[in-house]
This record gives sequence, structure tokens and C-alpha cells, in this order.
Amino acid sequence: MAIRLFITGGTFDKTYDEISGRLLFKDTHVQEMLQLGRCRVPVEVRTLMMVDSLEMTDADRQLVLQNCRAANEERIVVTHGTDTMTDTARVLGEASLPKTIVLTGAMVPYAFGSSDGLFNLGSALSFVQALPHGVYVAMNGRCFAWDDVAKNRELGIFEPRR
Amino acid sequence: MAIRLFITGGTFDKTYDEISGRLLFKDTHVQEMLQLGRCRVPVEVRTLMMVDSLEMTDADRQLVLQNCRAANEERIVVTHGTDTMTDTARVLGEASLPKTIVLTGAMVPYAFGSSDGLFNLGSALSFVQALPHGVYVAMNGRCFAWDDVAKNRELGIFEPRR
Amino acid sequence: MAIRLFITGGTFDKTYDEISGRLLFKDTHVQEMLQLGRCRVPVEVRTLMMVDSLEMTDADRQLVLQNCRAANEERIVVTHGTDTMTDTARVLGEASLPKTIVLTGAMVPYAFGSSDGLFNLGSALSFVQALPHGVYVAMNGRCFAWDDVAKNRELGIFEPRR
Amino acid sequence: MAIRLFITGGTFDKTYDEISGRLLFKDTHVQEMLQLGRCRVPVEVRTLMMVDSLEMTDADRQLVLQNCRAANEERIVVTHGTDTMTDTARVLGEASLPKTIVLTGAMVPYAFGSSDGLFNLGSALSFVQALPHGVYVAMNGRCFAWDDVAKNRELGIFEPRR
Repeated sequence: MAIRLFITGGTFDKTYDEISGRLLFKDTHVQEMLQLGRCRVPVEVRTLMMVDSLEMTDADRQLVLQNCRAANEERIVVTHGTDTMTDTARVLGEASLPKTIVLTGAMVPYAFGSSDGLFNLGSALSFVQALPHGVYVAMNGRCFAWDDVAKNRELGIFEPRR
Repeated sequence: MAIRLFITGGTFDKTYDEISGRLLFKDTHVQEMLQLGRCRVPVEVRTLMMVDSLEMTDADRQLVLQNCRAANEERIVVTHGTDTMTDTARVLGEASLPKTIVLTGAMVPYAFGSSDGLFNLGSALSFVQALPHGVYVAMNGRCFAWDDVAKNRELGIFEPRR
Repeated sequence: MAIRLFITGGTFDKTYDEISGRLLFKDTHVQEMLQLGRCRVPVEVRTLMMVDSLEMTDADRQLVLQNCRAANEERIVVTHGTDTMTDTARVLGEASLPKTIVLTGAMVPYAFGSSDGLFNLGSALSFVQALPHGVYVAMNGRCFAWDDVAKNRELGIFEPRR
Repeated sequence: MAIRLFITGGTFDKTYDEISGRLLFKDTHVQEMLQLGRCRVPVEVRTLMMVDSLEMTDADRQLVLQNCRAANEERIVVTHGTDTMTDTARVLGEASLPKTIVLTGAMVPYAFGSSDGLFNLGSALSFVQALPHGVYVAMNGRCFAWDDVAKNRELGIFEPRR
């Protein structure tokens, strides 16, 4: 059961730049994380963009959608910044593709020792194998349908919409 | 959807002892791992034993079974050493409890920087929420039914039985 | 041989804030680092400030100097942001205190897995014990006298002045 | 000021073997540690052996001595298991070479997240630059002359002899 993994950036992949002292995007850490998890499911990784999700445009979201539609795989994981993850989930969800798509990310960059990234990646790759077609957000052990999830920015957690 | 998590020890929880220079069991790392993963699913953790799975007896396996049967939760994760994980899965599987039970573990102790433990824990907690009743082994991104899995000890991986 | 350790902040102690997605100062990591290094030299730690060294004022530097002067210990380590570490070293150096003072820091926050902080802390605590009175900058295995060191901001390294 | 670094193995360099579930020697981690510390002092690394120090023979110690004598560098760090570090220090010390030699190691393997190795390496590379000719043991922030040090095996610390 091959899985397609699309990378869009987000906290997940931010790196500390020693020269500027700032958090930047360089290469993705996803391959390294799959190795650390000793992942034995075939995962085809492709980087679509490397952006902070606050800067993701409508065109960017359409690009993600296009790639999900065009992918040969029926099961797709998308790594994404948390701030607008639910917006992209909505764009994908409304397209009603005959696929299982799981968006995930991290509250803390993987490059930090204290990151939830590896936990979330293991989670997303599992939900995507087990769930029926649909679009989901998998964060911190929970999985939400795309039309019933919101990020609580004060608490930094995802929760059902009210 | 509350999840019960039973700890039995295994590589997952081995710790380096500075005085003896050996790998021992002290406290479990599972609570720390749930915190690192910022796990937002309610998980009730209980340590049943702390053993190397090569030393797990039939009585130990019956104890695991008893606890799975007695648990209020319908969804149960069991952390377990990899060497005899499939044996315990068989004992649980043959009991045909009306529950979803996922066994998981790690190839490398969590206390090592290079552990797959956090990835596997995220994975097991996700499969247990998404799969129908039954007993499963979740390791390194894959999930196997209890009656179709074996550990390949030469390669150190789990695979379907032949 | 008791050592006094003054904390001023800097990259060393920056932490990722999950809510804002930014690098901030919270508590210092120095105690945790001393524990990790299983440091057996008595070290008295005191936080003087928690600032980015680009924002350190003349008054701040005078405060550091005052504290170095007033300390009972003859051997003092100061953790400091790298950008103006040499400026503070100059203020301390020109005061010609009868003490050995070593400034150190990190190119990457300790909270990142890839930090040089622990290496530098081990180094600074060693140079401060072994060197004669004077003010020094210890970074990345090298030790410079306060009046012969500059930070090369393009390369992100410390080097002798030319 | 070039430094020679001889590797002999010890806890420092032990690695967890996923297949056997045991601590073994594979490659040294020293190069990786020097990179992590962003070490800017020229260090010439050479692996002499990869052994548990409890298994180090007299011939092994003579080999270390020979290499210290033959090295072009006047400043030498030797990584070593902690159990017999003071024995090797004695062999080197009694040879009275016109060099500064510092032995160091770790209480916990570097491959563990909780290792003191990086701290000790930073420390040893600093003491070796700052101290006069002689043979020393540098562990956990302290530095001992070869003829005034013993390992307290119950506490797992080094201390002056009584």
C-alpha cells in the first residue's frame, strides 16, 4: 500500500540558521524522520513548496489540490504549517477526491529536541492507511474530519469546531 | 475516545545504567513520550510488568490478556519487546475480545537519540482509534493482523507470515 | 575550586515558543546542561539578565562587570549572545580584575538537537580553571584573549583580530 | 595549535545494535561530536582500537603510549573507557613524555540523548590546550593529575585518591 507524501513546509521543517539567528526553511527533514521511524511502508516523498503556512496563497492551495488529484496513490499525507492547515484541508475536502488524505504538522520544529513531529508523522501515516476516503487533520494523536476542526491559537491545539 | 495503554517493558523502555554500564529497566518513558508528542487523546497508562520479552512467561501473557479483558476501554495499546511480540499477539488474538488491541514497541530504546519509539507510539495510538475490533501489531508504519505477522530476526523487521 | 556562572541570555538559552512560533527566552537551560554533563565542579549559577546580545546596553555590561567584581569566586564563566560577546569581553577586560573570566555562548540554541552549547559549556568551565587571570572568549574549542578576538559574522565564527 | 586525538573505544563510543539488542562498537562518534561542537581547533583523529576498557590489555596500553610518543603533536587527547582510564593514565604518566595528554570518556554512550560525552570532549580539548606538560584525566568538568585520581565505581564518579 504505497503512500504519497507531499511536503509544503510549516513549523515541521523549520531550521535554525546559525548565521542569521533565525528560523528558516532549508531542506526538509521528512526523509530523515522516515529513517528514524524505520518506516517500512513505501512512501513517495515530493516537496511541493517550503512555506510558512501564514504565507500560503490560494494558488498554493490549488497546487496542493492538483497534486493530490494527479497522484497515482490513493493514500496521501500532506505536511503543513499549523496556522492554516484547516484552510487547506477545506480546499481538499470540498474537492471530494476518491482518496484518503491526511494533513499533519508539528507544534515545534523537528530540528528541536522537543518536537512532536515524529509522533505526528507516525500518526498521520497510520490514519491514512486505516481511514476511508476523505480529508482529515491528524495532530497530536487526534484525527479530525476536514469540516469539523479548528486550531485554537491561544492554546496551540486542534479541536472540533463549535 | 479514551485509550488504555498497558506497558510490559521491552526495548522501548530500556535505560542505560551508568554504574553497571548495562541496559536495564527503570521507569517507563511512555508518559514522557506522550508529553513530547503533545498527545491530546486521553490515554490511561498502566505498567503491568517491566521485562525483556524473551523472558516473558505464559503466566505473564495471561496477565496481559486478563488486563485487556478487564479494561473498561474498548481500545488498547500494549507496549512490548519485539522478540516475542507476535506470541503475545496470538494469545490476545485467540481470545477474540470485542476490542481493538494494538501491540507496539521499538527497535532501539527510546532513551537513545536514534529510537523509532516515538514514531511507533504515534502510529499505534492512531491505528487503535481507526481499526475495527481485532488484535494487531503496529511497527515502523505497518500494521499486521495478529495471525499474519512474524519478526524477521536477521533483518530486524516485521513482515507477513509466509 | 568553586566557579561562578553568570547568565545573560543569548542564543544559548533561546527556546521555541509553540504558541507564537518564535524564539524567546524563558528559563535558562544551564542547570539542565550541567546535569547532562554530570558536572562535578561546584558551580554557582546566577541569572543576571535574559537578553539577545544585540539588545544589550552599556548599563547591562556595567551590571555584568559589577557582578564579576563583587563575586567571591575568582573564576567566572559568563554565558552571552555571540553578536556582542566581544564587546562585553572588552568592558570586563579593561577593568583588569584579579580574576579569570571566560565568556561563552552557542551558535545554535541548546534546545535544538544540533547545538554546540554543551560542548562550549564544557570548554568554558575547563579553560576558566586552567588559565591565569584575564578575560577570555571560549567558543567552539578555541580560547581567545579579550583584546584579540572578533566575530566573523559572515562565517559565524570567532577568530583573532587582524 | 594542532591537537592529536586518539580513540580507544569505551562507553563514549558504544552503539545500540538493533538486531542483537546489545551495546556494541561500530564506528566512532568523535567526528560527529567535533562537528556538533563546531570545533574550530585543528584536531587529527586516529582510532587506535575500539574496546571496552575492562578488556584493555597491557599490550593495548603500550600501543597507546607508543602512539603518544610518536605523535608529532605536543597536545594529545585520548578517549577511553572509564573503568580502567586511570590505569592507562598511569602508564602514560610514568613515561614522562614532554607532552600534555588528557584522557577523557563518558558515563553514558554518546548515542544516548542523555550522554555527558559532548561536555567531556569540549572539556578535554580545552584542558589539553591550557595545561602544562603532564598526563591528566578530565571527566565531568574536573581535571586530575594521573597520580591523584581514582574512579569510585559505586558512585560512578572520579575523585582524588585518598
